[in-house]
Parts: sequence; C-alpha cells; structure tokens
Amino acid sequence: MITAGAWRQSGGYRRNKREEAFDCSLGGMEAWKGNELLYRTREGDVVRLNVETMKQTVLVPNKIFTLYQASKYELSPDLHYVLLAYNVVPIYQHSFTASYIIHSLEMLETWDLNPPEVRNAKLQYAGWGPQGQQLIFIFENNIYYRATVEKRSIRLVSSGKEGVIFNGLSDWLYEEEIFQSHIAHWWSPDGARLAYATINDTLVPKMELPTFTGSLYPMGREYHYPKAGEENPVIYLYVVNLNGPLHTIEMRRPEDQRIGEYYITMVKWATSTKLAVNWLNRAQNISILTLCEATTGVCTKKHEDESVGWLHRQNEAPVFSRDGLKLFFIRALPLGGSGRFFHISMSISQPNTSTDTLQTVTSGKWDVTRVLAFSEDTQQIYFLSTEDDPKRRHLYSADIVGTFNRRCISCDFNDSCGYVSATFSHNTSYFLVNCHGPGVPSVRVYSTLDKKKVYDLETNQELQNKLDSMQMPKVEYRDVELEGYALTMQIVKPAGFVNTGHYPLLLFVDGTPGGQVVSERFQVDWTTALASSFGAIVLRFDGRGSGFHGTDLLHKVQHRLGMYEEKDQLHALSIISKEPYIDNTRIGVFGQVYGGYITSLLLSSEMSPLKCGAALSPITDFELYASAFSERYLGLPKPDRRAYEMASLTERPSSYRPSLFIDKKFLIVHPTADEKVHFQHTARFISRLINEKANYSLQIYPDEGHYIHNEATRLHLSQSLVNFFEECFRLPEKLFEEELEDESEEEG
Amino acid sequence: MITAGAWRQSGGYRRNKREEAFDCSLGGMEAWKGNELLYRTREGDVVRLNVETMKQTVLVPNKIFTLYQASKYELSPDLHYVLLAYNVVPIYQHSFTASYIIHSLEMLETWDLNPPEVRNAKLQYAGWGPQGQQLIFIFENNIYYRATVEKRSIRLVSSGKEGVIFNGLSDWLYEEEIFQSHIAHWWSPDGARLAYATINDTLVPKMELPTFTGSLYPMGREYHYPKAGEENPVIYLYVVNLNGPLHTIEMRRPEDQRIGEYYITMVKWATSTKLAVNWLNRAQNISILTLCEATTGVCTKKHEDESVGWLHRQNEAPVFSRDGLKLFFIRALPLGGSGRFFHISMSISQPNTSTDTLQTVTSGKWDVTRVLAFSEDTQQIYFLSTEDDPKRRHLYSADIVGTFNRRCISCDFNDSCGYVSATFSHNTSYFLVNCHGPGVPSVRVYSTLDKKKVYDLETNQELQNKLDSMQMPKVEYRDVELEGYALTMQIVKPAGFVNTGHYPLLLFVDGTPGGQVVSERFQVDWTTALASSFGAIVLRFDGRGSGFHGTDLLHKVQHRLGMYEEKDQLHALSIISKEPYIDNTRIGVFGQVYGGYITSLLLSSEMSPLKCGAALSPITDFELYASAFSERYLGLPKPDRRAYEMASLTERPSSYRPSLFIDKKFLIVHPTADEKVHFQHTARFISRLINEKANYSLQIYPDEGHYIHNEATRLHLSQSLVNFFEECFRLPEKLFEEELEDESEEEG
Repeated sequence: MITAGAWRQSGGYRRNKREEAFDCSLGGMEAWKGNELLYRTREGDVVRLNVETMKQTVLVPNKIFTLYQASKYELSPDLHYVLLAYNVVPIYQHSFTASYIIHSLEMLETWDLNPPEVRNAKLQYAGWGPQGQQLIFIFENNIYYRATVEKRSIRLVSSGKEGVIFNGLSDWLYEEEIFQSHIAHWWSPDGARLAYATINDTLVPKMELPTFTGSLYPMGREYHYPKAGEENPVIYLYVVNLNGPLHTIEMRRPEDQRIGEYYITMVKWATSTKLAVNWLNRAQNISILTLCEATTGVCTKKHEDESVGWLHRQNEAPVFSRDGLKLFFIRALPLGGSGRFFHISMSISQPNTSTDTLQTVTSGKWDVTRVLAFSEDTQQIYFLSTEDDPKRRHLYSADIVGTFNRRCISCDFNDSCGYVSATFSHNTSYFLVNCHGPGVPSVRVYSTLDKKKVYDLETNQELQNKLDSMQMPKVEYRDVELEGYALTMQIVKPAGFVNTGHYPLLLFVDGTPGGQVVSERFQVDWTTALASSFGAIVLRFDGRGSGFHGTDLLHKVQHRLGMYEEKDQLHALSIISKEPYIDNTRIGVFGQVYGGYITSLLLSSEMSPLKCGAALSPITDFELYASAFSERYLGLPKPDRRAYEMASLTERPSSYRPSLFIDKKFLIVHPTADEKVHFQHTARFISRLINEKANYSLQIYPDEGHYIHNEATRLHLSQSLVNFFEECFRLPEKLFEEELEDESEEEG
Repeated sequence: MITAGAWRQSGGYRRNKREEAFDCSLGGMEAWKGNELLYRTREGDVVRLNVETMKQTVLVPNKIFTLYQASKYELSPDLHYVLLAYNVVPIYQHSFTASYIIHSLEMLETWDLNPPEVRNAKLQYAGWGPQGQQLIFIFENNIYYRATVEKRSIRLVSSGKEGVIFNGLSDWLYEEEIFQSHIAHWWSPDGARLAYATINDTLVPKMELPTFTGSLYPMGREYHYPKAGEENPVIYLYVVNLNGPLHTIEMRRPEDQRIGEYYITMVKWATSTKLAVNWLNRAQNISILTLCEATTGVCTKKHEDESVGWLHRQNEAPVFSRDGLKLFFIRALPLGGSGRFFHISMSISQPNTSTDTLQTVTSGKWDVTRVLAFSEDTQQIYFLSTEDDPKRRHLYSADIVGTFNRRCISCDFNDSCGYVSATFSHNTSYFLVNCHGPGVPSVRVYSTLDKKKVYDLETNQELQNKLDSMQMPKVEYRDVELEGYALTMQIVKPAGFVNTGHYPLLLFVDGTPGGQVVSERFQVDWTTALASSFGAIVLRFDGRGSGFHGTDLLHKVQHRLGMYEEKDQLHALSIISKEPYIDNTRIGVFGQVYGGYITSLLLSSEMSPLKCGAALSPITDFELYASAFSERYLGLPKPDRRAYEMASLTERPSSYRPSLFIDKKFLIVHPTADEKVHFQHTARFISRLINEKANYSLQIYPDEGHYIHNEATRLHLSQSLVNFFEECFRLPEKLFEEELEDESEEEG
C-alpha cells in the first residue's frame, strides 16, 4: 500500500528485488496520514484505518484497479483522487515507465496524465505533492507540475535529454549505488518548493547491452555507465519555487578544497525553506553535511567526516525537530580501542549564533541502524539498533537530555520477533512495527504512550498454518571467535536432523562489504527448499568486511577485496566440517554479484574442501564494475591499478587460480542484458577458464536484466540452482539404493 | 603447398574448417606446373619435382618463411618470386586479411605490397596472375594490378566500400553459401583479362555481433547478413581488359523473364575471350548456364535447368576442351522411375551454327561427384564418382565417343584407398591422387598412360606406425533398407569390442541436406577418442535429405526440414539398439549447425531413447538463417511462413516439444560472435526452454566466431564434448566398482 509520498520513499516497485523470493507480507506498503493508516488489503482495497476509533473506510475498491489494470497507486493528499499506474515496464532496480490516470474518488471523472501536446505518454514518474492536489510528473527527463488536477501542466525544467541529462531522476549510477532509488527530487513540507537533482551523463562512457531476441536483426542497447576510473556523472541540486512566477536556484556546494569531484548522497528538507544536503568526495573518504537556504542557495556546513577507510552509510537521512534546529544523524564514532560504531549525533543550532552544539545521544559496541522519529512531546528520539545482538534489529527510544536514558521498546513484544522495522505516525502517537523475523512476518500498530498493541494489521496466520503443517528446517546460530571479534554463523538444519546423520553442506556467501547475511530475518527461498527437500545443511557467516560490527571489521577488506572474505569463509567451513554430521565430500557454495566473486575465489582455493559451486551474475573484475562501488573499496585504478589486478579473476597476475578447480563443478548463471554486472564479467572470466582448460557450465537468461523481472524466469533460476546442488549432493546411485534397502529392512 | 593459382582455387586457409580435427596430410597443397609438381614439404621447403626425371629442386627454403613469419605463399608463374603472407587474421570461413611481401628468389630484393600512398596495408587478397609476374591485390574492396613486380600498382576498380560493395571478393553470403570461397575474380588463361564480381550489400540488413572482451566498453560489430526473405546482395560480373588502356565490360545476364532476382553461382574461363557463367534465380529452381563473350558482354545460353525441388550443386565448374568448343558439366539426369542422378553432359558447339549438340557421357544409379580433366590426346574425360559405392569416391575415365566406355582407374590401387580426389597435370600426362581413406591418407603421383605409380609424395608412414601401436576403434558398415533405398550406417566400435559387452552409443548427426556423414574418409576426432578411451560405439547414418543417392531421396525434405531426418535417425537407432551389445540406457546424440537442429529435435522426440545430447551452434529457426540456405529448402517466408513455423524450435505452433526432454541432459555450445549461425538462435531457443521449464546447460566461447580459429579454444571444445558424453555414459559409481571387483576376482 503506497500513498501520500510513501510510494516515492519506498522506491516504488516491490517485487523486483531478487532476494525477495517469498511474498508473505501485506499486499502493499502502509503509510501514515495523521493518526490514520492507509494501506491496501489482501483483497486489494485501499482502506483508511483510524487507529484511535478503529474505524475502517474503503477509499479505493479493488475493482478500480481491475478496471484500469493498474498495479501502482497513490492517493492525493486531500484524498479526493487516486493516481493509478498501468503498463508498468521496469527499467533498472527501482525505475520504471508507466501510463498514468487520475481517478476521482467522488465523481465519475478521470484524467489521463500527459505532457501538453503528447498522447499516451510513457512517464518516468508521477506523484502527488504534499498538499491538496498538487502533482508532478517526469517525461523525457523533464519535470512537469500541476497545481491542481484540473489546472494545466507547466514544465518546470527543460534541460532534460533522454538517457543523458536527468532532471528529478537518478541516472543508473545514482539509482543503483548512491540514492538507491530512481527518485531524485524532494518536496518541501509545505509544497511550496521542489528540490531536484540534475544529473549530467554527457561525459560518461556508454556501455552496450547486447540484444538477441525480439526481432530478426536485434541491436544492442546503449546507456551511460561509469566504470572504475572513468568519467562520472555530474550532479547539481536546484530548488524551484512553485508559488508565483517560477524561480529556480542552484544549491551551491560548500567551498572546500578537499572536495573536487563529488557525489550528492542525501537530500532532505529540514523546514519549508531549509534543506539538508550531504556531499561526498569521489574518493568517498570526506563528506560534508550542509544545511542549504532554499531562497539563496547558500549551504552551510553542519558536520564533516573524514576517514582513512571509506565512509559508509552516506545516503541515510537525518531527523529534525519540528523547528529544524535539532538535527539527529548517524555517524561512526570512535569507541576507545575498538574502532568506530554508528551512533546518533545531535546537532543543536543556537539561534543568532553560527556555532552549533554537538552531542552524542547513543554509544556502545553496537550500531544504530536507523533514526526513525523525534517526539516533540517527550523529547525522545526513536531508532533501530543492534544493541541486543548484531543479527537483530530492535526499536529503541532515547532521551535527548540528561543521561540519554535508553529503552528497548520492541525487545519483549514477541519471542518470534527479533528483527523489526517501524514507522511513526506524524505526531508520533502511534507506530507501526513490521516484524521481519525470525518467526513469520507480521505488521502491528502500537500506541506510543503505553507501548500497547492497538491493531493487528497482518499476522500471516495462513502462512503460519501452512508452515506448521510442513517439515521446516531449523535455524541455529553458533558463535565464532575471529581475531578477537565475536561473530556468528547461521546453520540451517533440515527437519528431522539427527546428529548421527551425514549431511551435505551449502555455504551461502553473499552481500557486499558492509552487508550482513546472518540475521534473524524470516527467509524462505531456494536454499530452504534444498534443506527441506534434499536434506542439505545451509551455512552463512559474516566475516571481515561485513557490517554491523563497527568499522574496524568493515574496513579490513579495503584495497584487498576477496582476500579476507575467502579466508573467513574457509575458516567457517573448517569449523563446521569438524562436526560428525557433515559429509565433507559434499560441500557446495553459492553467491551472487559480490558473493559470486567470493564463490569463484573459494572454488579455486587450494585449501578448498568444495565439490561444487554456483555464481549468479558474478563480478569478476572490479575495473569493469561501477565507479562508485569499485573506487570505494579499491580507490581509482589510475595511476596504480595493483589493487584491481590483485582482485581480478580474469587477469594475471592475480591471486586467482582457476587451474585448481578442474575437478569441481562450477555453474555460472548470468542474464545477458545484466545492466549492473555486465555479461562482460562472465565472458572475460570464461575466456580465462577456457585458456586454463578449466571446466565450467553456464546458464544464461537471454535479454534479461540484472533483477530478472520476469516471474517464470525467476522460478527457472531457483529450480536450476536446486537441481544443480541436488545433483552435486546426490550420493552414488547404488549406495543410495542400498541405504534405502537397509532402512526398509529395519522397518520390516 | 600452394602456388600458381592453387592458393586461390583452394580457398586459402586450410586449418579453419571445424571438421578438420586431425592434420595428417602434407604440409600444404600440391600444384602442377606443366609436368612439374610444386609443393611444400614437411620440413617447410617449397620444392619443384619433375615427375619425368624425378629431379627435385628447392625453390623456397623454409628459412624464408621463418624470416618473415609467413604462413601462406604463392610462387610467381615465372618462378622468380615468391609472394608471402604474414600477420594473417581470419575473417569468415575462408577470408582473411594479411600483410604481404614479395621476395625475389634470385636477388636479395623484397617489396612490400601496398596500394599507392598506403603503408602497412592489411590486404584482403594478393596473388599472381597466370603469366610472368603479373599480380593483383585487393584493399578496401578495390582491386589493384601490377603488370610486373617492379611496375607501379594501378587501381582497376574504385567503387569498393568496406563491408558494403565488394569487388573481386565475396560478401558473407557468397563466401559461405554460394561460391564457398572468398574469391570472386577469375583470370583469363592468357592473363590479358580479369573477370570480377561486384557484390552490392547496400540494401542487405545489418546484423550486430555482440562483443564482450578486449576493452572496457566493447561495441558490437555490424555486417550485412541477409536472413530468409530479406533483401539479398546484388551481384554483377565485369571483365577488365589489362592490355592497353583499361576497359571494363559488364557481362549481361541472359534475358529470361523467369529470372528476376538471381545469384551468379559459378564463373570459369573457357578460352581467353569466353567465360562460362551460371545464373540461378533466387528461388533456386531455375538455372541458366551461359557462355559470355568477354569483349562484348553478351552471354549466350548453353544449358538450362528447371526443377521442382531445389537445384543442387550449382557452383561446380565445367571442364572445357582446349578450343573451348566442348563443354563437360554435371547435371541431374532422370533415370527411369528412380529419380535423377548427377552425370556428365557434354555440349559440343558447332562452329558456324548457333545450335549445340548435347550428349550424356555417363549414366546409372550413382553420382558423378566431380569432372576433373579432359584429355585432348585420348579424348577421354576424367572424373570422380560414387559408382563403386555411395560412401566411396573413385577416379574414372570415360570415352566421349562411341559407347562412352568407362574405366575405374583408382579402384584397384590399394585396399586402404576407397575415397580419393585427384588433380591432373596440364597436359594430363600425370595425375596426383589424394587418398582420403579408409586407411591413413596418402598422396601419390601416377602416369596417365599406364596408370603406374611414379612417386610417393606422402605415405604418412609415421602416423601409420603410431596408429598401429594404438588400440584404434574399428569402423564397420551395415546396410539399411529405407523406403526402397539401400542405405548404409557406419558403426565405429572400440578396440577390443566383444559381442557380449554392453556399450554406450553416440549417434553423430551432421551435415545439411545434400551432405553425407557415412563415407570411407579417414577420420580421427573427438568421437574417436570417445570410442577408444571410453568404450563408446559411434553411429552415423544418412537418411532422407542426404546426398549421393540421387535427387529423389535428397528432395524428400523440401518444405519439411527435420521431419524425415528425425524419423530416419530414430529408425537407425531402433535397428542398432536391438543389438545385445548396445546399452539402451546410455545413448547420446551430437550435431552441429543443421545437425544441432536435428539433435534438438531428436532429444525432444517422444520415441527418443536418448539420455543426453549436445548441439554445437544449432540452427533453431530458419527465418534467422542465411537467405540462400533457408529459401533453398523452405521457399520465401513471405507471404506463407508455415514451413518456417513448422521447422522452428522456438515458435509455437511448431513440431518441437521441449517439455518432453525434461529428464535428459542437453548441452548447447555456441561461440558468441558466431557469424554464420548467430548466437540469437541459441538465445531464442533458451528463452523457450526456460518458459517450458526445460533443463539445459550452455557453454559459450566469448567473442569467438563460427569456425573457432583459436586452437586452444578448439581443444577446449573437443575436451568438453568428450567430458560431457563420458559423464553421460558413466555407469553409476558403485556398480562400476562392483564390476571391477568381479573382474579381479575372476582374474584371481
């Protein structure tokens, strides 16, 4: 359920994330409107729930969706109209084009949404502003504005050039690596101003994605993609004033000689005329958080960071007090000799002076993962953190005065609830908790005052019943000591597991630096199928380079990607393979993207006990990968590309030894139109494997992109992976038959 | 060994044929010069052998090749110079670019071969003319002429446009499907005139071959490729007069309203001023053989053919008597109720009248496969035919008067020699026989008068010794009756074969309509390895659609490609699988290109006993394939594309049922830059397999072309195929161990 801005903030389109294999939450996202909750039910109706009165009203019946074959919607702030999107065609991870129609909820009236003089336009974006019926849409990279539904559209900016100059939208790099959203515009809370980025890709080299199907003579598709060390997009931030004559002002980046080429990584309005902007240098080790005056374009430095390692989590938005004078943001703070951990800093502007006071609200050997809301009434800040356990996320509050007294709010809600996210109603009277695991996910509404549950929005009872009737694998955790860190491995054991058994093992490596694969999130995917149907044990472990254990562990991998990850995964394997229940002759590994890189390293390792491995869209050479990613960890490849060479799977000299896995089964899966990890990675890799006479097996998805938007194709992928590991894990036929005979004898 | 025109006629480049897996003949081609033979020895020297005196002279010592790193050569007609090619870069099957140098064999002089004002030119062709030191070369699709080595080059034609307008060279279609050579120019025997084709691809749609390696931002490579029903190249034939001022005349196609769009399929000079040209309509069922007057451009019809099925073997050159008045050519002649067979027709021009007499020189239920030479002295014609057996080729002579008395010349040369080719010295006093099998290949010189051997040019004794020391598989043949035809299957049995064994079977399907896989040619390739090292039996069978059994069997497949081939291969399987020594649970199939198409059909067949199959560069949709090929068998796809639909592996409705081979192992191998069968074929096919949840496994060769010119890659391919079938044919481990134990017990 997406409404009143939530669509934009949610990044749109829900089902295109590859990892989201099992849809067990609500039909849509939920959004607060005052103390009312707007959401779409399983039946498809959009309802409004007053959490004080529990009164429920259907605003948009499902049949309206059916009528227009609409798959996305947004309600106007005045709740008189719904904006519906149909013919939705995904572009990259978040972006899409669609046709839009405005449907009146009171009269039998509709309006097609088109730029002046254009019919049946495929828009890149359309959405309501924060007030009344104001809305904008984006077509051919230009932004159009309508003050009300019935007013005519005016063009706010006209410099757009398809695929080259983006107004209010991300280019590929910003969508995937910086904002992690295709949206690059931000409404002031009063709706009087719109901030938007202009991203210029003119100088960024073009990559060609090959095309094979669809016509007799298919032609490749080109788009701007900056590989490591190549020209980056140039970003500018503008604010356009919508009341009165159009007036556009550029927000000027802070004058700081240390910042040459830069990224803008975060924009958020603090008040109706001030906006917070985070600037990051290209090397990603210096960042400046500024507060910009929308009326003048002057940006004043509020905070700066400089780091030896790369700066992590640069796109997270701070939270402001209503007057905009208090600013809560997350930064890595040093903790004695234990490195840095992510905590809430509070910056208080002193009216009439230019100095701010800076205080630390939280501290400890754990990370704050998100600042959620600030309550003006109780002067408390709400946030999520790993204080309970790095693999958990709980909701906390902290006082911002005195001893910064801190309380866990969600810790004793529910045993099956260790990993939560939350949203607060506008005045923080209520909050909604999304419990992501370890039990079946649920969505509940609580009152902030007494922390009592007021409504079960979703309990997923049906799914619970279904799982109860099935033999589900059991998830266990085990502590691992690694260079003084207390880390955790996750072990998924098949139902009916017995210590005297002899099980095959799948090592699941995934996640990029700063990521986490061991968590209490509920997860049902193809590895679950492998465990439940084929009796495999699944192992996950976050070693050096992973997130949520402070920056020391994180930054270990800088300039030497792959080295420690390989060692640490082998370490985890060596621990578990000592267990009598592991069959050491049947161990496999899987990973995708960066995990595909680690998978390939592991398979070629001299000490590798692996029998087989599968890599999905593997990165094989960081020089071929996105600038913002590769440079973050390896620096610029010019003039010194040694770090790139060392990390490469396709070059010599490199630490990669393909000749060592000649007797291992290696499956590579790569969609051919992968816009994130180009098929080029796999092609180069295969060329090396061929030269070194190494075996491999390949699956491609012709003309599919990285996120495989086609459902049938995703199913094929899961099935292929299960088949591959099932075959790798299969016992010799005869042996298996004998075992069966033994068992039947025992039964008889 | 290539010299004096043989280079051109041989189609150049020898090692780029995929099927040529084992190089066991001489270091190069042999060529006659009068009664002298020019060839390159195993040691690398080019020698001249006088077969009358047996005197041998080294003309070009090998060190000259080493000096220039030259890989191709041609001697000037006066034998004073050698033209050497280095930096040879293959383009398609035959074509290549190279740098050239002329090396004097008498003085220490060399000349780089470059067009005026150009340095280090990569030429598309260079070669001597028939007289003295005259030579031509082709650069940027324009032809340059030098009257002698020391004269300056003059440009004969300037309309060339790279990749678009070809002068004296084939475009892709002509090289691959029509001339089967990249050379499209022909010297008059006196060297006074040069005939050349101009092939205009301006209107032919462009196909893009994707590129993955070689740079950070690789771009696809475009070239003109006419798919079925699309615009074809337009060809014109010109003759340029080289003595005196340049004068170019177009040879005008015969006025015949039945021929609209046309191909020129053959050009050969009959005398110094007359040339034979074969014109074929686009539908490939009407052909007109003309004799063109080079001085006027007037072409006179000598013979015409019209057929219900397609016209086969249209690019074979006729043989002329010295005066050009007698013309010997091969045409399909009706033989009672048995359909048509290919025989020699003789057309004799009556001086002073416009009527010719036409006589049939040979007849019978067998095919003449090549006319070789006409002896003016004995008035005999020499040719190869299948009269002895369709799987053999023997050299015959026939009188051209009286009863056309016919004698087999090579039939009792040697037991191990059933498949020969031959060339005659210029006055037919001597001939050279290349024996291609069934024994180890050899090259010998004979005297025409008494048919006595005068010289062993190559006996391959070393190879013979090596094979004698190895356990080589045994080739057997077995008659199969199919719809009244006596056909033959070839069964390759491993050494040490015993009737009581239990062997896996590989069915090897290959060849396009008109082709032949069962022959007595000596063959050592990866299937031999499979038989010798892994005890597999290899089966080959030519059914309906195959060549050398007359046109009735051949034309059966018209408009229904795949249907009968599938049935006939299954028929062969059903016969052999009744043998007790065949393990019916371990049968695999392999094919490439058209054979890859049949392989895919067989794997999906309901009656298929196959366990696994591999297809290399399979055609999966004839609409995506070359116009001249697809239209020959299926007609134009517009307006009625039913025949295309029916034959498609990627469309519904089609006769293809991928869901049926869900439990079979299917390996597809395809180089990604395959210029003949575009990767598009495999991509479309895979998309269908994914939709139908069928399994497949893929191997690609990144940026490799169809003929895989890279030796390491070819080795990887052979090894991959052996591995794939070895694994498919492997017995369950346990069973295998038990058998071994049993055996050792017996031994003990």
